[in-house]
Amino acid sequence: MLHTSDASCPSMARLDELVQMLLQSEVDNPVRPMLDPSKVADELGLAIPAGGLSIEETIDKLRGVVLATPVTSGTGFYNQLFGGREPIAVLAEMLGAILNNSMYTYKAAGVQVVLEQILLDKMASLAGMTGGDGLFTPGGSMSNLAAMIIARNEKVAGTREEGLPGGRYIVYTSAESHYSVRKNAGLIGLGRENVRKVPVDNTGRMLPEELERMINEDNQRGNHPTMVIATSGTTVMGAFDPIKPIVEVGHRHDLWVHVDGAFGGSALLSKEFSPLMDGVELADSLTWDAHKMMGVPLICSVMLTREPGMTTNHFDESATYLFQQDEDRLNPGTRSLQCGRRNDALKLWAAWQHLGDTGYEKRLNRQLELAAHFRDRVAEDPELTLSFEPEWINVCFEVTGKPSDRICDLLDKRRLAKLGWGIVFGRRVIRMVCVNPALTEGDLDELLANVKLVARDLPEADNAVDNRQASDD
Amino acid sequence: MLHTSDASCPSMARLDELVQMLLQSEVDNPVRPMLDPSKVADELGLAIPAGGLSIEETIDKLRGVVLATPVTSGTGFYNQLFGGREPIAVLAEMLGAILNNSMYTYKAAGVQVVLEQILLDKMASLAGMTGGDGLFTPGGSMSNLAAMIIARNEKVAGTREEGLPGGRYIVYTSAESHYSVRKNAGLIGLGRENVRKVPVDNTGRMLPEELERMINEDNQRGNHPTMVIATSGTTVMGAFDPIKPIVEVGHRHDLWVHVDGAFGGSALLSKEFSPLMDGVELADSLTWDAHKMMGVPLICSVMLTREPGMTTNHFDESATYLFQQDEDRLNPGTRSLQCGRRNDALKLWAAWQHLGDTGYEKRLNRQLELAAHFRDRVAEDPELTLSFEPEWINVCFEVTGKPSDRICDLLDKRRLAKLGWGIVFGRRVIRMVCVNPALTEGDLDELLANVKLVARDLPEADNAVDNRQASDD
Repeated sequence: MLHTSDASCPSMARLDELVQMLLQSEVDNPVRPMLDPSKVADELGLAIPAGGLSIEETIDKLRGVVLATPVTSGTGFYNQLFGGREPIAVLAEMLGAILNNSMYTYKAAGVQVVLEQILLDKMASLAGMTGGDGLFTPGGSMSNLAAMIIARNEKVAGTREEGLPGGRYIVYTSAESHYSVRKNAGLIGLGRENVRKVPVDNTGRMLPEELERMINEDNQRGNHPTMVIATSGTTVMGAFDPIKPIVEVGHRHDLWVHVDGAFGGSALLSKEFSPLMDGVELADSLTWDAHKMMGVPLICSVMLTREPGMTTNHFDESATYLFQQDEDRLNPGTRSLQCGRRNDALKLWAAWQHLGDTGYEKRLNRQLELAAHFRDRVAEDPELTLSFEPEWINVCFEVTGKPSDRICDLLDKRRLAKLGWGIVFGRRVIRMVCVNPALTEGDLDELLANVKLVARDLPEADNAVDNRQASDD
Repeated sequence: MLHTSDASCPSMARLDELVQMLLQSEVDNPVRPMLDPSKVADELGLAIPAGGLSIEETIDKLRGVVLATPVTSGTGFYNQLFGGREPIAVLAEMLGAILNNSMYTYKAAGVQVVLEQILLDKMASLAGMTGGDGLFTPGGSMSNLAAMIIARNEKVAGTREEGLPGGRYIVYTSAESHYSVRKNAGLIGLGRENVRKVPVDNTGRMLPEELERMINEDNQRGNHPTMVIATSGTTVMGAFDPIKPIVEVGHRHDLWVHVDGAFGGSALLSKEFSPLMDGVELADSLTWDAHKMMGVPLICSVMLTREPGMTTNHFDESATYLFQQDEDRLNPGTRSLQCGRRNDALKLWAAWQHLGDTGYEKRLNRQLELAAHFRDRVAEDPELTLSFEPEWINVCFEVTGKPSDRICDLLDKRRLAKLGWGIVFGRRVIRMVCVNPALTEGDLDELLANVKLVARDLPEADNAVDNRQASDD
């Protein structure tokens, strides 16, 4: 039965057993012990055997691995811009793994292609980009990559066919933007040096007048201002750049305006918070990750454009051996970054069916409500310093006079919480992000109590950082 | 319970039920009916509701969707370079969906990072690239993309920092290579026109002397020969370019030599077939997809380099808010294309534990054995024409005088099989790929009988194609 083609009943029973064990262990041990990376391979027997193990032996090893893997859905995880889970999305993702369709053609993926397009249309309508274009990509960085390639091709004539003609094509983004902007500029041949970090105001938002000043400066130097990447929901501060004035400046100078809403795009789900993204309907493209605030398993990222035809114009490639049935409209492979592509749509579709627009709105409002609760606890506590007034779910603060980085390390080491730090205006600050709406006010109070607890065991320290570190993000 | 953080027991029971139903239906209906794409959204109620559905209603809809999705693991699927499933890999993929770790840091993914590195080391050792470098990417096209970016940066000084300096940087690949080479050249700023298609011999293998001739020609024109992409396992013919002579030519002219083994890399698993890739240990980089011949769910693709440090040198980007604990070695995010990245390693690790090296060798040999059986049936049949002697699992043929494309369409329409066609030396040929080792000789005989059956209902036709189509591969 080595080559059996079915995921047989015993396997499903085993899966059930493993899942129940895993879920119970997440409750019992919301933060797992930190394992010594140099020993874990031996301890868990990770080396690949020449001869192969029985299914039972393999499952035993899998059990060990699963129980040693960091928990991202429990009450101890505040480290990342994802966390928690919508059960129906997980179930759909598991079905997707069994179905195993590659999303390039209607022949190979059928209804899954239609369902994916419905999601793109839905998200476009929330962004005011109905009638535009869009695609699923393998992550927010890759959605930004797709947008930056389209922007480059649209603004630098002949690039797709003849290659970049030489010269400095400048990308503007805020000093608080995600590192993928600079990285992508390196990947697509524009050069990392040609990314300009536009200064931000005291809540982390790009200053449109500084953007314009920098564009003018580059024009005077003979450089070619090409695109601006605004951010909706910066990684550390959760800041929303003012899109409307950025679009005005960008379009006045003939730049492509992309909005990186990988994190904050979900604001569009809520009447209360969508004004943070006013003007997105005027931008040229948008990144929006559903695996962050929308609770579906990694990865589920979308890139949308205001104009139609963009993905086809810049990503299509003929291949008779693949695209041979149905119209191109039904074959997303003609406009994707990838060729073979996993199904990232089914999980989001299932979650949206269950929650509906109203459910997702409530879910988002709850995430913000939890953040507001945490912000209030920090603000009222004399031992703590709130770094700035949060706009989003990022609450940044210091235990006054105690080292933020070491507090986070110690929380992890003592298995109290996974929590990260960032640099805000030259200071190391603890960043609490409240992505998982299943958390309670009580969980957050406990987190804060634990932060103060471990801080007591640490010596005084100044969180000010030198310039080099402050500017490296 | 809208925001429950656990995949609750009823969900698991439901999953079990859905999986059993799905597996049974794959046996009963190995090729599902082709649905009218303009009606399927209404028929299955795919639109996203404002108000949300109950879990039971959502699962009812999911059931409908699952039963309408093309089957890729049954006895009717010969359409793609993947198919079938290793149950333990599916189980591990499902666990990965629940675990939901992003593979950028040891803090967030722990043992999963170690296990991923073990796989990279293992695959590097099979390719003779031990001590080199590697990464997981979201697909074979993306692995080629990663390699082409590294190649470009290594050969065109200053590109990563200052951008491409202008000029024609030439990429060589065979006329039979995958479309991602040309596409990627467009994505990374080299330009699609700067990809040269090197002629092939009568089994589809690149001619090294033609490669050298074309390099010399470009040098004379003042262009900059930059990289050559050899293919191990071309998409249509399954041809293996002769790597050793290509490396000799390439390195003599200071080109980066990448091997696209997305499809054929798995030859390295078998003593009998690994000689097809002789010389890969001399190449600079290699793409190898485990989701094709190794039976793990989509996507599982690896890019390896012979020299160490390559991925860090060309993909790293500092981000204090993310990389703040442990050494960079333990934080794959410092050398990945993506930032947030799903776990594509666990499924392959689990399958390799179960099969071992010997099991994977047997599995591969069986895939080739099935192809040889099919080749023999075609060769001995007077109604059929074998297009060339296969080296790999691709068996290409014509029903003499009958239209290959329409045969494939009709097989799908009549729910007999999903099978594709390709263009070989100016003729449309049926391409049978034998990826799923759970298939039997009987399944293949039945497939061939069905091919002949539907051919009878089609008018005579010439499979010769005009030049335009022949060259668009």
